[in-house]
Amino acid sequence: MGSSYSTSLAFALPNAPFCSLSTATHSLHKSNPRSLLNSNIKISQTHNSKPEKNISVSLKSSNMSLNCSKVEQVKTYDPLGIDPDLVQKLAYDALVWSSLHGLVAGDRNIQWSGKIPGVGMVHAPVALLPMSFPEHYWRQACELAPIFNELVDRVSLDGKFLQDALSRTKKVDDFTSRLLDIHSKMLEINKKEEIRLGLHRSDYMLDEQTKLLLQIELNTISSSFAGLGCLVSELHRFLLKHYGDKLGLNPARIPGNTAVIQFADALAKAWNEYNNPRAVVMVVVQTEERNMYDQHWLSSTLKEIYPFQLKTLAEIDAEGELLPDGTLTVGGQVIAVVYFRAGYAPTDYPSESEWRSRLMMEQSTAVKCPSIAYHLAGTKKIQQELAKPNVLERFLDNKEDIAKLRKCFAGLWSLDDSNIIQDAIERPELYVMKPQREGGGNNIYGDDVRETLLRLQKDGTEEDAAYILMQRIFPTVSPTFLMRDGICHQDRAISELGVYSAYLRNKENVIINENSGYLMRTKVASSNEGGVVAGFAVLDSIYLT
Amino acid sequence: MGSSYSTSLAFALPNAPFCSLSTATHSLHKSNPRSLLNSNIKISQTHNSKPEKNISVSLKSSNMSLNCSKVEQVKTYDPLGIDPDLVQKLAYDALVWSSLHGLVAGDRNIQWSGKIPGVGMVHAPVALLPMSFPEHYWRQACELAPIFNELVDRVSLDGKFLQDALSRTKKVDDFTSRLLDIHSKMLEINKKEEIRLGLHRSDYMLDEQTKLLLQIELNTISSSFAGLGCLVSELHRFLLKHYGDKLGLNPARIPGNTAVIQFADALAKAWNEYNNPRAVVMVVVQTEERNMYDQHWLSSTLKEIYPFQLKTLAEIDAEGELLPDGTLTVGGQVIAVVYFRAGYAPTDYPSESEWRSRLMMEQSTAVKCPSIAYHLAGTKKIQQELAKPNVLERFLDNKEDIAKLRKCFAGLWSLDDSNIIQDAIERPELYVMKPQREGGGNNIYGDDVRETLLRLQKDGTEEDAAYILMQRIFPTVSPTFLMRDGICHQDRAISELGVYSAYLRNKENVIINENSGYLMRTKVASSNEGGVVAGFAVLDSIYLT
Repeated sequence: MGSSYSTSLAFALPNAPFCSLSTATHSLHKSNPRSLLNSNIKISQTHNSKPEKNISVSLKSSNMSLNCSKVEQVKTYDPLGIDPDLVQKLAYDALVWSSLHGLVAGDRNIQWSGKIPGVGMVHAPVALLPMSFPEHYWRQACELAPIFNELVDRVSLDGKFLQDALSRTKKVDDFTSRLLDIHSKMLEINKKEEIRLGLHRSDYMLDEQTKLLLQIELNTISSSFAGLGCLVSELHRFLLKHYGDKLGLNPARIPGNTAVIQFADALAKAWNEYNNPRAVVMVVVQTEERNMYDQHWLSSTLKEIYPFQLKTLAEIDAEGELLPDGTLTVGGQVIAVVYFRAGYAPTDYPSESEWRSRLMMEQSTAVKCPSIAYHLAGTKKIQQELAKPNVLERFLDNKEDIAKLRKCFAGLWSLDDSNIIQDAIERPELYVMKPQREGGGNNIYGDDVRETLLRLQKDGTEEDAAYILMQRIFPTVSPTFLMRDGICHQDRAISELGVYSAYLRNKENVIINENSGYLMRTKVASSNEGGVVAGFAVLDSIYLT
Repeated sequence: MGSSYSTSLAFALPNAPFCSLSTATHSLHKSNPRSLLNSNIKISQTHNSKPEKNISVSLKSSNMSLNCSKVEQVKTYDPLGIDPDLVQKLAYDALVWSSLHGLVAGDRNIQWSGKIPGVGMVHAPVALLPMSFPEHYWRQACELAPIFNELVDRVSLDGKFLQDALSRTKKVDDFTSRLLDIHSKMLEINKKEEIRLGLHRSDYMLDEQTKLLLQIELNTISSSFAGLGCLVSELHRFLLKHYGDKLGLNPARIPGNTAVIQFADALAKAWNEYNNPRAVVMVVVQTEERNMYDQHWLSSTLKEIYPFQLKTLAEIDAEGELLPDGTLTVGGQVIAVVYFRAGYAPTDYPSESEWRSRLMMEQSTAVKCPSIAYHLAGTKKIQQELAKPNVLERFLDNKEDIAKLRKCFAGLWSLDDSNIIQDAIERPELYVMKPQREGGGNNIYGDDVRETLLRLQKDGTEEDAAYILMQRIFPTVSPTFLMRDGICHQDRAISELGVYSAYLRNKENVIINENSGYLMRTKVASSNEGGVVAGFAVLDSIYLT
């Protein structure tokens, strides 16, 4: 759930995006009273746009494709060319639209904003305008979605592969170890998941050096922002509808986004497969969640179709019961589908109660989204294993599909590859070290890569199994307008495209296998030892060029 | 803009409803951490429901109808009979729905919440369920709407009537005096308003004693809550759609409410009458407005049809220009329609700048909503003058229409009627003293009526002209669930029905004259000297019985 760029911890967790270490913008409210309305939107320019230093990339890797195929130049519009008065109007309208249409979050500065709906709301942080994105990369990312779905499903069925690939990680990472224990128990009792539901999001960046769309990670649990992401696409279409002529932009170039409807539909169809009209969908949530409105959009869309309930892991432990036939009941209510919006991070399991709860759900006949095997299939270590030569071939038959997947794989290595270790010590600016542990803000860059690798070599423990190495990606940095706390900032930013996908099958058939909309996340870029490091992120959409 | 019940100042201003003197509910957030979700909605019962003391009413008045026609008993559902678990579910869903659908306001506890959209939002205070209301009273109120529209239009054309009726008020009330000065200037230059637009809201209460629907006041300027009021009707329909079976309530019994669309449509049609494709609608707003989202709903609906801009009175003074042909421009932009959401209260005119602005707009050819004459026609003094015998007949021809209006008039008297003064001194509990000055919280009740009248008699000044006397209305007090700051309270409450109406005409024809939706406001009731006094108010809808 991290990326190859450092982000603050909160951003890297899929459900808690609206935190940033910076609080500078907030003080503006106090120190800078504005006269209101047409002049109350502050536009702050914190960086000047300047050409990025061109860094030559040449990684030696046995299994990394450096296919620098020629692609046409990305056509972008220039945000710096927009009349400041027009920016103010756009910003004001964006704030109003967001407030009226539920594009909101809990304000991190206000108590109870993560506990009680309707209290302490603030507009979600958003980009003022969609980010330019070349259409053929967009199509490529969409095409990959059903192939990744199929891959996750096949990998999930190979219990031995998951256990073996994660065996070294297990020794040094407690969280992965607990997940593997549950997985082992399921293997022991030969538990079969006949109805399998995946709601994934595969994240990509466009690498400026190689001109390739490269996968950052694949989220198989709690893929967030299906709700708010759709709204950002709508917001940008609304703005272009009214101001597109002045901006020279066409709203039809923003792809339609129905992620929330497709996810709700997949949950409803899974409920249907469970085939018990009295059973409900249960959404497993955190005890505090400032991104609750994203979840509420999905739940509310689902509510129009089927009943659901929200429960925390601790509540499920207290109220849940596993009947002899494997039926899960919570508070006396039969559960057809368990949809996890919690349980992906070690902090979600503060006591044994939460682990008991997770185990009980896994043992049940309820459809789990995700099952423990789907969850493990989305770990960084498995991502790295799948990038090894001839591994994809174990799971997929179609050679074209395999080639498509491989083309989007960045260089990924475990720390038992001594050639790579040596190269990373010599040229640390070309690598990112990622801990298996969930949560971003833990990625290691630049000289820290060298130092960490040297320390691990010296220690000679198995701690190296807790990390993978990833090729460092160099995306385009563009000037962008970002809206946060009612203020419009102009800053240099990089973007990450997430493509949602839904997969549902029963014993006989695949029922759903589709690309399900998208999310752009745009992040403030700061220079850092030969590359950029991403900070505060906003929700965005794409403008096809 | 007050009612016959005392409300806090903020509630009586049509645009600033979300303030209350009480801050008790907020401290609950801090003192009472809750475990979340299904248990995070606190239901507090601050009063027990008990039968109201039955007060016999017998007012002697030459022009007051005490027509106690028999009406069928109001059928109500009993909120106290609803299962507490169900109340919790309803409350949680209501909070989520409000947040996702823009049923929000600026939080009075958060800085900038009245200045910058999208910052410091909280769900609007709402009733959890619609208030029971007998269908035939509802139809009566709807039927009255076009008649009141016609009346206001006719009264506005009689400059001498307005000036004469308000001549004594002018001497003691500075605000009315300034409005009358502008009106006089328009009479002097024989200014004609050929295109006349009214967006009104007539407020009523059901009097339990007389079984009559009685008018509280008629708002001809800044009639608020057309936007949020529609959403409350939708919220209640949504809740009844999902829980109606359990509650024994049918969502179809909540009347449809399209106030915001009808108001936007009327503004657009007025724009059309002005017949200048380059001109825009201008919304005159206050410098700080926590009820901004109500206005944004109207503006946004209008935006889909025609361009508009928001300006404060001071901005209009600074940027406005009156061209020789009477065209009004603001910031170089020709204004077709001026829609006032400010300018109704003395505090809106802190300097001469705002008065210059108001005068300039009145002198222009722009369509004013309202014109100065429409504004004056909605004052309490005019309401009282119209209630005198044979006055309605000066303005309306249709006897049935006159009878319908008169039936909804409460007893209204000026303080030059010595019989009434004597009766009010003897039985003050049957009267309310209302100052002409705008803003509620200034109404006088009970023993204070006696004391004020005795003091005025003793002083012998003209200060008595600053007041009118109104029959005190005794509405039904019902147990109700009110939602505020994320908390659901159970309390005893009274309700006031507002019926919106739109009127548009040009030199030749009436283009629009219609009932335009409704708003129920439900207020916490406290006992006070033989009656009830209304406090904190929430937005509500109606359930026809």
